[in-house]
Order: sequence, then structure tokens, then C-alpha cells
Amino acid sequence: MSDYKTPLRDIQYVMWELLGYDQHYQSLPGGEEASADVVSAVIEEGAKFCDNVLAPLNAVGDREGCKWDDGVVTTPTGFKEAYQQYVEAGWPSMCHHLEHGGQGLPQSLGTILSEMVGSANWSWGMYPGLSHGAMNTIEAHGTPEQKEHYLTKLVEGTWTGTMCLTEPHCGTDLGMLRTKAEPNADGSYSITGTKIFISAGEHDMAENIVHIVLARLPDAPAGTKGISLFIVPKFNLNADGTLADRNGVKCGSIEHKMGIHGNSTCVMNFDGARGYLIGPANKGLNCMFTFMNTARLGTALQGLAHAEVGFQKSLEYARDRLQMRALSGPKNPDGPADPIIVHPDVRRMLLTQKAFAEGGRMMIYFTAQQVDIIDRSDDEEAKKAADELLGFLTPIAKAFLTETGFEAANLGLQCFGGHGFISEWGMEQNVRDCRISMLYEGTTGIQALDLLGRKVLMTNGESLKRFTKIVHKFCQANEGNEAMAEFIQPLAAINKEWGDLTMHVGMAAMNNPEEVGAASVDYLMYSGYAVLAYFWALAAANSQAKLAAGEGDKAFYDAKVKTARFYFQRLLPRTRTMVDTIKSGANNLMELDADAFAF
Amino acid sequence: MSDYKTPLRDIQYVMWELLGYDQHYQSLPGGEEASADVVSAVIEEGAKFCDNVLAPLNAVGDREGCKWDDGVVTTPTGFKEAYQQYVEAGWPSMCHHLEHGGQGLPQSLGTILSEMVGSANWSWGMYPGLSHGAMNTIEAHGTPEQKEHYLTKLVEGTWTGTMCLTEPHCGTDLGMLRTKAEPNADGSYSITGTKIFISAGEHDMAENIVHIVLARLPDAPAGTKGISLFIVPKFNLNADGTLADRNGVKCGSIEHKMGIHGNSTCVMNFDGARGYLIGPANKGLNCMFTFMNTARLGTALQGLAHAEVGFQKSLEYARDRLQMRALSGPKNPDGPADPIIVHPDVRRMLLTQKAFAEGGRMMIYFTAQQVDIIDRSDDEEAKKAADELLGFLTPIAKAFLTETGFEAANLGLQCFGGHGFISEWGMEQNVRDCRISMLYEGTTGIQALDLLGRKVLMTNGESLKRFTKIVHKFCQANEGNEAMAEFIQPLAAINKEWGDLTMHVGMAAMNNPEEVGAASVDYLMYSGYAVLAYFWALAAANSQAKLAAGEGDKAFYDAKVKTARFYFQRLLPRTRTMVDTIKSGANNLMELDADAFAF
Repeated sequence: MSDYKTPLRDIQYVMWELLGYDQHYQSLPGGEEASADVVSAVIEEGAKFCDNVLAPLNAVGDREGCKWDDGVVTTPTGFKEAYQQYVEAGWPSMCHHLEHGGQGLPQSLGTILSEMVGSANWSWGMYPGLSHGAMNTIEAHGTPEQKEHYLTKLVEGTWTGTMCLTEPHCGTDLGMLRTKAEPNADGSYSITGTKIFISAGEHDMAENIVHIVLARLPDAPAGTKGISLFIVPKFNLNADGTLADRNGVKCGSIEHKMGIHGNSTCVMNFDGARGYLIGPANKGLNCMFTFMNTARLGTALQGLAHAEVGFQKSLEYARDRLQMRALSGPKNPDGPADPIIVHPDVRRMLLTQKAFAEGGRMMIYFTAQQVDIIDRSDDEEAKKAADELLGFLTPIAKAFLTETGFEAANLGLQCFGGHGFISEWGMEQNVRDCRISMLYEGTTGIQALDLLGRKVLMTNGESLKRFTKIVHKFCQANEGNEAMAEFIQPLAAINKEWGDLTMHVGMAAMNNPEEVGAASVDYLMYSGYAVLAYFWALAAANSQAKLAAGEGDKAFYDAKVKTARFYFQRLLPRTRTMVDTIKSGANNLMELDADAFAF
Repeated sequence: MSDYKTPLRDIQYVMWELLGYDQHYQSLPGGEEASADVVSAVIEEGAKFCDNVLAPLNAVGDREGCKWDDGVVTTPTGFKEAYQQYVEAGWPSMCHHLEHGGQGLPQSLGTILSEMVGSANWSWGMYPGLSHGAMNTIEAHGTPEQKEHYLTKLVEGTWTGTMCLTEPHCGTDLGMLRTKAEPNADGSYSITGTKIFISAGEHDMAENIVHIVLARLPDAPAGTKGISLFIVPKFNLNADGTLADRNGVKCGSIEHKMGIHGNSTCVMNFDGARGYLIGPANKGLNCMFTFMNTARLGTALQGLAHAEVGFQKSLEYARDRLQMRALSGPKNPDGPADPIIVHPDVRRMLLTQKAFAEGGRMMIYFTAQQVDIIDRSDDEEAKKAADELLGFLTPIAKAFLTETGFEAANLGLQCFGGHGFISEWGMEQNVRDCRISMLYEGTTGIQALDLLGRKVLMTNGESLKRFTKIVHKFCQANEGNEAMAEFIQPLAAINKEWGDLTMHVGMAAMNNPEEVGAASVDYLMYSGYAVLAYFWALAAANSQAKLAAGEGDKAFYDAKVKTARFYFQRLLPRTRTMVDTIKSGANNLMELDADAFAF
């Protein structure tokens, strides 16, 4: 059983056939380099690396985990060598701007590479993945000297980066953070405090590690308005940027955790470590928010990744494993039993995974196009629209795709029966690794508050309308199309209902602010199913057109239409429950006294 | 944070106040020993052992796991000693019949003890738990000599037992099994073959292990009609029943698996091992089916156990952890933030766990009463009714309570944010341990086919009606009760709809047998929500009556009514989706060619 094979056909379908990536890239300033030929070649090269180098290390990483010894962290066998190959091939610099050693390809291509890397080996992918936050921060807010010394090394990949936010007593509530930054005479700061859950905080894969640390200046206001950002390197730099002595930051321990064992999750102790202010004092959280959407989109990929892996493996197993006969009579009469893919419930589990994996791909690739526009476009109106769409879709993609990714990973395991629980098949690792995705970068509950509170209600529904208008236009364009009626009718209905439901919650929230929290997760999941309904309808329309024109591989397009049908008939009805629970209001959650939950 | 504290108040509530266990026990022949005083004392004694001895070993078992060395399995530190205490206290014999050294207490009391043991430490509980299948088999089908030699030792607990069914190529499809039993001159048989997934197949906790093995006689018909049952002891017995030499059965390896690390999951190699036929030749599977319901009810307990543990720990955390302010204003103004239990979405996660744990307790305790009646009653009509109810409720309890138990365990983890992923809190172990419950003793899919195919459709809906009549009577009895209207109206509606939906599927299945498999899992889950709606309405009625009478602890009954309200408004609406998906039919699952699932 193969570990992972990059689904090149589907990736290329979504890019070129469904979402018009060719035209999208050509329309971006500087995007002319990203021709379909070049991009396809890049993706195929990436696929070889992911399938042949990273995927076989995935089980190794889980089994060995990282090892900590007096502050030194050793990564699993093969991780370091794979990273060297990755750096030598130039992957870290692919989507960074030319001025700092980047290759200048669009960011969406980085997202697609991250999907492949993460599906092959999520734990490994987090080492280069975490660098992006550090790079983006320095690029946006660093001084020219900081860019020269730190950014170029991060872009070439010889150093990696981290984001140091969480402390033992605060995760979501960063206003409570305590790490101190005291000014030194030379303009640097002494950073003191403990950070936890620092992914890739310490490891043996790169020469240096650049920590971006949230801390408080001595005179900082309380709460979120008194947080500043600092660069704290593992090794101090000489004036010429070469490595000097070790800085006062040390990994105190690594966490024992449910999954992603191959990635080091570090407690980082800053003991008067030398740090450098980056960006304006006390505005650190604002600077961070700039990149929150991209970091969250990166986590959305994790849901897609585990859904894809679970789907691939359980499909292979379901075709091979012989057990029982089909209820409608033997399908493999010469064998001792039928392959379990004949059973409707096994098909339900496979199709659910397929619909979430392929659907998630459409959703994320579309969202990534908005990132490109924000990053590159010189059309201010287009940038504003893209920014609003990105802000709206990000919490949905992050929470909905990780929740459904976890469901998919569990269904993949379930297809294996008892064997799914046994480590050697890899299905239980896929579930364990996936579980973190609903927690980090803001839990599902936090994403839901971001969506409903900040993005939808605080814009009076404008950000929702930005998306529902796209859906409405699509429905109108397909109005007379008989073959599309089975998709367009329910899509148009849910698109309207979505607005009504939002209005309902908005009204309720005016009387009682707790109504927002009471509705939020169901509202987010409802929104996810609505967004995915649009993309599956889009794929159905696109594929029906190909079939009608007799173009390309009939079986491929036919499968898209049938998967869209499965989605509309078997998954979209989940929204029926959410409408009821959202409308049930906050009272059923709030009326029980905190002391009366158990006796 | 405590590991587990037996919820004595709720256990006693469900037994004595809700389900009339006192009257139930007194009406059973031989049940007069089981007075409320005696039973309550037994439960309190059991709770001490579970809370103080077993629960602290739960994390130890996960961390250390079992160790295999050349066929010898060593259990985690403390497991053996705890088992000795358990045996010395007489727990194994509690519910077995007096004639073989049992104490003759009703089986339902054993179920309640199993809930407590399993919640405290599921892996440990499986060692004595697996013995019950062996005991029941020998009691029902063994010769007097087999009973004397094997059963008495199992009942006293100095030996443990296993059930050896699964082989590498067959789990669900036992008709394919290959293990051979060849007759010896002395009337015994030589058993040869490999069995996998044998829980507690080898360990160091008991003097001897009694394997009940499914195998084929040389002249056996193919398929399920050619399977016989054999007793195969780890150590052969001398004529007087004392231990002789080692038999030809050896543990080839133990599995590396997602959870329940403290329990040994063994590959058992039978190499001409000496075995003894038990029950009639070729009727082994029929003999097994007698106990399938009790074994499956034992697994249903696992869902309840992990829901309860997750709920207890996440409730404690939610009351302690300070993070963010309530949307309606500070609730802990003097602290740096509010405890997270103020947030509606955290309450949603807590109440979901509570509703499933307490609801599952009601469902299982009611089902266990049917086991008592079958086991003890001399009223043939009552036994028939109980048998039908048990057959109907067992697949629902097994699949629905493990699926919702896994959801609850994950919500418990989710309440901890990122900390939930870290091993030291125990929440991720709770999720990992729970995951097996949806797989063993028949997957959710197999339970669903059993329910819809064998239990409901093959009886033309009679077994469903047996339950819906109970619900109907309850609704009628509460018809004029204003305060109960919010529960009775939706309960009566779903009780009617349940029958209509069954009819719908039955009609569809006449045209296409695949419709059964296509509807089955959603039908089972629908049925689970319907059954739980009855029990929560029952608890609401019972508690409202206490409140009206001003009896007992007002806060306790008030919490029951509010949890029932949460259940009806937030969980029961999930049936809306299932009605839609069931009615969507088999086509959306069957129309895609097996070759076209991926390209």
C-alpha cells in the first residue's frame, strides 16, 4: 500500500479547468513567468519529491518522534536529509519576492506545494511551513538590515523561523501574555518569559532558528494593545550577519502528544535573550493579524491533506479486501467474497472522503487566488474585493475543512474495520495527526466567532454578500440548464436561506450578545456546506459542459458529476439540522448554572 | 485533576428513581437478595476500587503498554496487583449463578460495575471483561466436566478467558475462517491456525487462560454452517483439573495500535493445540450468537465510559481555565479573564457530552433490565418481550453510543484547546482508547445492517413496534401535561415518523436490496436519537414530578429538565438530516463505478 501519491490529475483539473489559473496568473503583475507549462513542471517535480522522499518518512516520524536532550532536539531519521534536498532544490524560495532571493512565483503555487508536502508528511512540512510566518513578518515590518540578515537566510531555507505566541496561561487570550522585553543600551532588548506549543521551536535541520516573539515593553498598556514583536535568533549574529554565540533562548522540553510526533512542539525559555523590535512598539498584534489569514489557510490545508490520504488508502483497501457478498448478489463470484467497495455503506464512507478532499481542494485553491490578488494586483478595487473574500472564506476553510477532514480521516480508518486501529496501516496515524488541526491557529470555536462576529455581523453582512453574489450570478447563468437543475435549485435555495439565517442571528444578537456564541459553530459549519455546494455545483457544470462537448476523459467528468450529486443528496442536507439548532437560540446553552453541570 | 470519579448520584438516580430497579430486582426469581441496600453498598464499594485503584493506572497502562518477549506478555505496572485485589474481593463471581461458585446477583448489576471499571480504566477492564464470553459459552454449552474444570476457575477469576474468532483474512465474514480442528483418538481435537485481534489473549495476570476458539472439523460444510466451538486452555489440565503442561498455543506477537495500550491484542498461533469440542458440531456460530447481544452491550458501555470521562475532565477544566470575557460582559471581573464555561460554545460542548453520557446510562441500564428478565424470569411472555427489546436495542446501543461517545470524547478534548492534544491531560488517550469501540464486536456498519435488516425488516417492523408502543404509551400518559409539552410533542412526532421511515425503506428494499445498506447507518443513528429522546423525556417527566412535589435536591432535577431541553433543541434535530439522506436512496452511492473513484 503506497503512503501517498500526489493526485496530479485532480490538482491540474482544479487549477486549469475549473478555476482558470492560467488566465489568473497571466493577469497578475509579474505573473507572466507562471505559464501553465512552467507551473505544471514545478508541480510534477514537487510531486516526485513528496511521493518518493517525504511520504516514506511519514511513518518513521510517527514511530521515532523527536528526541530532546538538554535543550537539543533531534528530528526523526531522514528528516534532516530530506530538508537538505528541499533546500538544494530551491523550494523554500519559490514564492518569495525577487528582491530577497525569492523566485517570484505566485503564492497560490506555494499553497499547492504545501498541500502536496503536507499530505505526504504533515509533521515534516511544518518545519519549512512555520518559516513563512517569520518571513512574512520580517518582509512587511523589518528594517532593511533585518531583511538583509534574516530574511535572505529564511528565503533560501538555511535558517528556519517560528512564531512564539502562546504562554502556559494564555492561548486564545493573548492580551494576558507576560513575556517581558527590557531595553538594552545598544537598542536591543532582553526578552524573558516562557512560550509553549512552539512548533519547530528547536531542531537539527537548519543552521539557525529565527523566533518571532510576542512580548511586552516595560511601559506597555495592559491587554492586547501592549504587545510588541521581536526577532530573537537562536544564534546571535556578528555585524556581517554571520553566526556568533548562542543566544539566551533554550528549549526546555518537548511535548508528548497525540500525533504529529515528527514535529517538535517546544517549550521555549527566554532568559534575557537578545531580541530586536520589529514593527512599531505595542502594535505587535496588529502586525500579526496581517498574516493570520495565510497561516489559517495553511491549517485548512491540513484538513484537506488528511482527507486525501485517508481516501487514497481506504479506496485501495476497499478494492482489495474481500469480505461478505453484495446484498444484490455476488459481484466477484469466482472469489471467496466480494471486495468491500460493493457495499453501499463502504461507498458512503469513500464518497464522503472524496467529496471533502476534492471539494476542499476547490475551496482552498479559490481562496489562494485571492491571496495572489492581494499580494500582486495593482487594481485597488480588485484587491479590496479579494481581501474581503479572503477574510470571509479563511475561517470557513480553516474550521470547516479541518472538522470535515477529521471526519474523513476517521471514515478512512473505519473502512479498514479492526485493522484501522492497528498502527502498521497508517490510518490511525492519519487520524491522530489530523486532530491538532481543529485546535491550533485558533480552535473551531474561535474561527466561528471570527466568521460570525467579526467578518459577517460587523460588516452588516457585506462580506457574506460578496460571496453570495458570486453564487447568485452562477445560478442565474445556469438557470435554463435542465441538466444542472438538480444542483442549481438547492444551491439557490441555500444561498437565499444563508442570508435569512444571518439576519435572524443578527437580530437575536441585538437583544442578547450571547446569541452570537450560541450560533457561531453551527453557523460556520452551515456556511462551509453552503460554500462547498457552490464549488461542487461549479464542478458539475464544468464537467457537464466537457461531457456535452465530448472533450477529454469521459469517466473523469462523469465521476465529478456523480460526486456532486452525492454531495448534494448526502452531505448538504446536514444544513437542515443547523438551521434548527441555530434558531433554537442561546437559552438552552445558558440557562444551566455552572455549578449544576454535575452532582 | 482527578482521573475519574464514579458518578454515584447519577447511577443511583437512573437505577432507583428513573427505571425502578428496586421493584425490577424484587420481581426477578432469586432477585430478593438484590435489595436496594445491598446493591447500593456493592456499588459504593465498587466505586472505591474503580476511583482509587483502577483510575490511577489508566495513564500508566497507556504509557507503558504491554510488552511481548518470545510469547510472554507482561502487562503494565500495577495491572496484575489490581487484578489480584479484584479477585480477592470476589468481583468476578458477582453475577454468575450460584451453582458454579457465583454470587447470584442480577446481570444488570454486572453491567453497572463494568461501566465503572471501564470508565476508570478500559484497558484493564477488558481482561476480566473478556472472560464473560468464555464463561457464558461454557455455562450454556459445556459438559458437566467442562463446567467443573473451567467454569469454576473462570467464575472465581483465577483464570481468564478469551474469544478467538477473527483471522487475518476474515473478521466480519466468519464463514471464510480456516482454523482446523482434527480429531484425536482420545476424543480431543488438534487445533491449528492463526487468530488475530485476540484481546487479553496472553498476559501475566492469571494462572491459566481459557480460549474459546472457532474452527472447522475436517468434514465441515463450507461457510458459516461448518464452524464449531472448542475450548483450548493455555495450560493443559490433569484429570483432577490441576494445571499440567503448556498447550500448543502461543502468542506470536502483540499489535501496535492507536489506543487501549494497556490491553494485549494478540496474534495467537495454534499449532496442533489440544482442544475440546463445546456445543454441537458445526453449530458454533449459533452458539456464539446467544451471547452476541451481551458482548455488544459491553461495548456500548465503552461509548458511555469515554463520554463520561471526557465530560468530567473537561467540566473541571472549563470551570478553572480563565480565558477571554463573556460576550455579555465579565462574569469574573476580579480575575484576569472569565472561566471558559461562560462561553456558549464551551457550554454546547459540555452539554453534548453530558446529554450523551447520562442519556447513554439510561439507555444501557434499561437494556440491561431486559438481560435480567431473559436470564431469570419464569414468565415466558415477559422473556419473549425482553428478548425482542434486547435484540432491537443492542445494535442501537452498541453503534449509536460508541459513535456519540467518540464525538463526546473529542468534544472533551476540544474544550482544552491545544492542551487537549498533549498527553499529560489524558484527553487524547480518552479519544484514542474510544476509537476501537466503533470497530470491534461488529463495526457501526455491521450493527446497522443487523438493526435494519435482521431486527426490523425481517420481523416486518414488529421489533420496532415493541419499542414505539412503549413510547406511545408514555406520550399518552403525559398528554395533558403542559410542562411536558415541549418534550412530548416532538417525541410523539418522531415516534410516528420512525415507523413511516421504516416503511419507506422497506418498500424501497423490495425493489432493490442495496437500499438496506444505503439507508442502514443513517437509520441506526436516527433510531439512536429517537431512543434517546424517549429517555430524556422520561427523565424530564420524572424530574418535573419531583420538582412539583418539592422532593429531593431541586438543583439536580432542574438540571435534568434543562439537559433534556438541550437534547431536544440541539441534538434531536440531527434526525432532520437523516430523514433526507435516507430518502435520497441508494443510487447516489451505487452509480459510480468502482474504477472511477479516483484517477
